[in-house]
This record gives sequence, structure tokens and C-alpha cells, in this order.
Amino acid sequence: MSTPETLPLVIGVDLGATQIRAAVLRGVTLLSRVSLLTGENPTPERVIPRMLNAVHQALADANVSLDQIGGVGIGAPGPLSGRTGIVFSPPNLLGWNNVALRDIFHEKLNKPIFLERDTNAAALAEYMFGAGRGYQEVVYLTISTGIGGGVIANGQLLEGATGTAGELGQMTIDWRGPRCNCGNIGCLESIASGTAIARRANEGIALGQSDGAALLEFVLARCPQELKVNVSGSSGGAVGPIQVDAHMVALAAEAGIPLARKIISGAAEALGIGLVNIIHIFNPEVIILGGGVTQIGEPLLGPAKRIVQERAMAVPREAAHIVQAELGNDVGLIGAGTLVYSKLANEASSPNT
Amino acid sequence: MSTPETLPLVIGVDLGATQIRAAVLRGVTLLSRVSLLTGENPTPERVIPRMLNAVHQALADANVSLDQIGGVGIGAPGPLSGRTGIVFSPPNLLGWNNVALRDIFHEKLNKPIFLERDTNAAALAEYMFGAGRGYQEVVYLTISTGIGGGVIANGQLLEGATGTAGELGQMTIDWRGPRCNCGNIGCLESIASGTAIARRANEGIALGQSDGAALLEFVLARCPQELKVNVSGSSGGAVGPIQVDAHMVALAAEAGIPLARKIISGAAEALGIGLVNIIHIFNPEVIILGGGVTQIGEPLLGPAKRIVQERAMAVPREAAHIVQAELGNDVGLIGAGTLVYSKLANEASSPNT
Repeated sequence: MSTPETLPLVIGVDLGATQIRAAVLRGVTLLSRVSLLTGENPTPERVIPRMLNAVHQALADANVSLDQIGGVGIGAPGPLSGRTGIVFSPPNLLGWNNVALRDIFHEKLNKPIFLERDTNAAALAEYMFGAGRGYQEVVYLTISTGIGGGVIANGQLLEGATGTAGELGQMTIDWRGPRCNCGNIGCLESIASGTAIARRANEGIALGQSDGAALLEFVLARCPQELKVNVSGSSGGAVGPIQVDAHMVALAAEAGIPLARKIISGAAEALGIGLVNIIHIFNPEVIILGGGVTQIGEPLLGPAKRIVQERAMAVPREAAHIVQAELGNDVGLIGAGTLVYSKLANEASSPNT
Repeated sequence: MSTPETLPLVIGVDLGATQIRAAVLRGVTLLSRVSLLTGENPTPERVIPRMLNAVHQALADANVSLDQIGGVGIGAPGPLSGRTGIVFSPPNLLGWNNVALRDIFHEKLNKPIFLERDTNAAALAEYMFGAGRGYQEVVYLTISTGIGGGVIANGQLLEGATGTAGELGQMTIDWRGPRCNCGNIGCLESIASGTAIARRANEGIALGQSDGAALLEFVLARCPQELKVNVSGSSGGAVGPIQVDAHMVALAAEAGIPLARKIISGAAEALGIGLVNIIHIFNPEVIILGGGVTQIGEPLLGPAKRIVQERAMAVPREAAHIVQAELGNDVGLIGAGTLVYSKLANEASSPNT
């Protein structure tokens, strides 16, 4: 896809639990890209100066001055409110509690600053520049360690009362299911996320039953060197219990290992149910699937789409295209930058703001 | 609540599976009210003329001429598209297949005509005149024979690609649950609707086990005369198996009958899960509960709200008021009339239409 030269230069900042990334962008074109560790003990006092450093470094690397920048977009873990620019208290940013991130950035940079949940930013990016181009009713679902979402309804981001709408991974689909990290029961995330897939595999191996042993054997034969990196208990080189990730489970499923097939098939069924719910609730034109776990491809997406065919009501089912995301690993940065385009356009078209 | 005298007179038509109702209204004030049977074999050829008769009778009863009317709103069973004015093929209106109901009415009445799904019309009515007044993020959930919904996001009705968004009863919450009438598995509707509550009670009685017998005994002692009306197999006065309805199950639960308590408590748990999902997905300011089953009150709503307290994420949970609907049994007619106010206001404020 190409980026119109008429778009202004913007800065995108993607605040994650492990990395702070920043870029100077024009649309989907990155002129520079900076990555810093979020660091242990990620309090706002430590993280915000690091985010600002990343911004200045991205400007320097791109040989662009702040004067040339149309605005700064920040994607961050929820819950947060895009309207007020306040980050509430994300579970993976300990020590953050109602931080007025937008105002702090505005004071330091004196530019239009826009803040959104990372998945909402990614949804807007796919809507404006990726797989959602040309549609007005878009649901973005990202499946990686967790499952997140972002919804565009009638061309507008669904924000809700306090900015937390679109938490599609935190939807109970299994009444008797496992407790989710969010506190809820049987969430889509607790069954179909990368973490959930890996957890079930590792539990199967730890139980030492025959199907767990077959999975372990497959994994050890395949890539013992990768496992050394992934052992838990990182201190002093001690080798802890083996930790299998979702990608490895998918490879084992493809090779016919029964436990792995069962786990991937369960995740696919859960995803299918989530898609049916999304189709009934939002009647979207397109559902865009992003995140590393969707790279498993057909073994995950095939059965999920068959469930949609079997169970979703005809009218909304026929309206809904289910496609993979287009913007790849840079969607966080592109999404953050897209916030500037999206929100400046909204302000220009709305008489009320 | 009072209705401003400045609102124009409108006509509301509420097309249901058993009744066609029509009224001349100003806001929530009905100047007349007409009710006709939808009739057996409700083809469009039979039903549409009856709807038009109801309109003319409502005008005559109110002593109002069509010239004095600002527009006509029609609420009808989904799936339908409000944008195009087409009724697709509702499961309880056999013989309807892509009927251009709005255009047909416009041709006959030469007035602005607006069509919406009945639950969307009710949602708009509660938003403009009822429990949703003053809010911009409103979810309406109606629990009667089925479970339906309507969503107002940022002050706008959520329509989706083809007008079917907001089908909140058709959301799987129990992966291993019963098949729903809609074709899906474990829908909220298949567990917490009036039909589902009654079905479980009648199944318990039919099985002839001890807890079913205790429920039957309670029901027979309470009101044998009502049961004569409700026996199935209506022909020739033959007495078929006893049919208990959701209201009776609720009374039995209140009296401590174990099977009834178990059924109501299961429905309450399902409703609680549905509310958690709605809170996570929409982050509403208010969830308005309507429909006859919510009249069960505390035994249903108390446990459901406790599940919300236990399981929903703090930020959206604290933003969400859960309240009962205010507009009562006339919400269908008021909703149909409200379509005219809502959609005329939208057209006036939008430069694109």
C-alpha cells in the first residue's frame, strides 16, 4: 500500500509492557524507528522520560525537527480514556494510577497529542491504511499473549463511557471455563490466546500423561536450542521446566501430536464462537484478525470460520468478511501515528469540538 | 415524564408476531391506540393492508388527519435494515422475503417513513424519553419470550453493515449449552429468556422426578384456572400437558420450590454473564433492562448484579448503571414513534443526507 505525500509527518509512540517504541511516520511509511526497554519497575516517573527520549531520538534519526510534525499519537495498554487522555491503572504497568499522559506530553512537546488503547490504535490503522480500507463497520481482533479488540462503527471508533469499549477478549464464552487474568470466567482470552494455548500444553506436559509425553518428545526433537532460551527460572543458568509456546503447539498439531491437535482445535472453536458473537453484536462488514497467534493460519482459522458458517445468522454472516491484518509487526507504531490523522480529521469535521 | 408540546404528532406502528398495534403519539403521550391480530399465515399481502388499516383507524380515533402528522415510524421483528427500509425474512413472519416495507408505506401515505427493528426502536425510546435520558452510551436489553437488544453509542444507534447489530440475545455464553432457535449454541437467549425458563420447568415436570413433582404441586395449588388457559393442544377442549410460564416459575422460586429456584438462579447467572460481556464490549453509561421477565425483579436481578460486581473489570463496571426500563408495555408504540423524532433530527444535523 502507498502513503499519500499529502499526509503530514507524525510521531507514533507505542508503549508496551516490555518495549517503548517510537517512530517518525507519514502514513504507513516509517522514517525512523527507535526501541527502548520499558524496564523493570515501570513507574510513570521512569517510563515517561524514557518515552520522551524515544521521541527525540526518533526525530534525530529521521533528521526531522519537531516543527515539521503534525502531532503525536500514543498507543498504550488499557484501561485508559482517549477522550480525557488519562491512563487509569493498566495491570502490566504497575504504579500507574490515573496518569494524565496526554497533558504531560503536551506540556513537554507543545504539539497536538492523542492517546488511545493500543488495540484501538491498531484498529484505526487497519481501518485507514490496512485490511479495513473502504469499510465503515470494522472489528479488529488481535490474538497474541492476550486477546484485544477495537471497533469502528459507522466510521467512528467505539470508545464507550470511559474509553474501554471493545475489550472483545474479555467476553465470557464458556460459562464453566477457566478464570481469566481479568477476573472474569471463561473469557475468549482465557481459551484462545497464545498464553492460554501454551498454558494448556505445559500443563499437559507437567501432568506426565502419555499425550503430554508425546508432545514433549516432539518439542525436544524439533528444537532443543530454542527451549533453552525459553526455560523458566532465568537466574544462574539453571534449567527449569520446559516452556512450550503457542507457535510450537501449532507445529506439533500440524505434525499430528494428539494433545497439540486438541489444544489448537479447542482454541479454534473458541475463536469461532467469538467471531459468531462479534457478528451478532456488531454486524460488521469486516473482521480483521491480527496478532502473532493468527499466524498459525488455517489450522486455527479454518475450523473457526466453519463454526461461523454453521452457527451465525444468515444476514449478518453474509455481510461479514473475515480477513487477516495487513500492517504486520509495525501496526503498533502505525496505529499510534494514525491517531493523529484520525482525530484531527474528526475535530475538523465536528462542529462541537 | 412529560412530553414537550413542541414535538410534532407522529404515528407509531408496532408489528409483532401476534398483534399489529398503531397509535397517534406526541412523544410518550398516546392520543389513540389500535390493536389488530397479525393473523395466522401472516404473509406481507395479508399483513401490510392490515397495518395500513390500523394507521387509518388510529388517525380516526385520535381525530387527527394525516396532514397533521410529521412522519410514521414502524418497529418490526428483525432481521431488517433501517437504512434501506427492507424487511429481510423474520423467522416469525413467514412468507416475508426482502419486503421494501418503508417504500410501500411511503407510496400509500406520502409521509416520511422510518423502519427499525422493534428492539432498536425501544432502545431509542428509552434513550430519548425513558431510563436513558441524558446518557450518550446506552445498551437496552429486553428479556421476554426471547432476548433482544439495541445499542446507542455516542448518541447514535448502532446499526452495523445491514442493520442487524445489537442482537445481544444471540451471544454464546455457554460453549456446551443448548441449541438456540437462532441456530447458534448456548446463546444468552437459550438460557435466560422467558421461553428458556418455562422450557426448563416444563421439562422438569415432564421428567416426573421429585423436584418436578414439587413444582407441579405448587403450580396446581396456586392457580389451576390459569393453567386451563395455558394447556397445550388447543383444539376441542382436550387437556394437554400443563404448561408453566416464566412468571409462575419465579413465584415457585420465591416460595422455595427447589427446581424453580435452580432455574431462576441459572437464568440470573446467565444474565449476569451477559451483563459482564455487555460492559466489557460497550463500556456503557447505562444498561436498561426491559421486557416481562425482568418483572421477576430481585430474585433475577440481584444475583445478576452480584456477578457483575465480582467479574467485570473495575473501570467499565463503575461507569455502568444497571436500571429497569421506564416506558412499560407501550414501549413498542412509543419506540416506533420515536424513530420519527430520532431520524428526522439525524437528517437535519447531517450534511451528507
